[in-house]
Amino acid sequence: NESKPENKDNIKIVVDQREIRSSVARSLDRNGVEITVKTLEVGDYILSDRIAAERKDTQDFVGSLIEQKLFEQISNLSRAYEKPILIIEGESLFNCRGINPNAIHGTLSSISLDFGVSIFYTRDPEDTAALLQQVAKREQVDEKREVNMHGK
Amino acid sequence: NESKPENKDNIKIVVDQREIRSSVARSLDRNGVEITVKTLEVGDYILSDRIAAERKDTQDFVGSLIEQKLFEQISNLSRAYEKPILIIEGESLFNCRGINPNAIHGTLSSISLDFGVSIFYTRDPEDTAALLQQVAKREQVDEKREVNMHGK
Repeated sequence: NESKPENKDNIKIVVDQREIRSSVARSLDRNGVEITVKTLEVGDYILSDRIAAERKDTQDFVGSLIEQKLFEQISNLSRAYEKPILIIEGESLFNCRGINPNAIHGTLSSISLDFGVSIFYTRDPEDTAALLQQVAKREQVDEKREVNMHGK
Repeated sequence: NESKPENKDNIKIVVDQREIRSSVARSLDRNGVEITVKTLEVGDYILSDRIAAERKDTQDFVGSLIEQKLFEQISNLSRAYEKPILIIEGESLFNCRGINPNAIHGTLSSISLDFGVSIFYTRDPEDTAALLQQVAKREQVDEKREVNMHGK
């Protein structure tokens, strides 16, 4: 086994059970983050007591929008955490067929302006892991916050 | 002169003097938005009493980050408006040379999580105009809000 970097900062991230097979969890682990797996009611990654991230690749995002599940998830996330994050991973949303660009603008506007969810775009699972780790580090090291899970 | 679409919704946007030669202002005008030009202390486009947008193309964004002006602008914007918006227009930030991707993630995290600024990405000036118009319409028509400018 290659040795992992020392987790000098002792960064912890709670990962939802359904995400555990993704390369994001593997990247986090490889980068020395301490991962705890739970079945989460809300969110995919818990970074502190106030920040949880929902991760969707571009296809999932469009799919959940079309199936009208997206806003329920966003609503639950924003009610449970003070600083909710949505990570949209992969190719540009505007390259997706089957959805009107104005519908995308409208959806993104609502998610950020109405629900106060911060939206981040990442290129791939490794990039997502880097972002999660960076935000977790700022919260847990710089701001000295704990990691707590919240329900709906 | 080609006739402009009726501005049935009577959407108004205040545009900063320095933006007036951009294609964004021309697109808004062509789409029937009522434009008022002012010299704004804060923001480039005022969409309601609570929403102002700062627009930066990708190069400007990276440039203002390197020159350390970006956070002052973001800070002023977020102090003056309840729902501040940053629009990053053009090619992907991650294609820009001369800046570390982690620095970009860190900057975007801080802008959204620390300053509460909603970040939107658009492809070109016409796309920016479409987004501004859509947000302005939601505010002024759906929410029946006025357009007011705020200082620093």
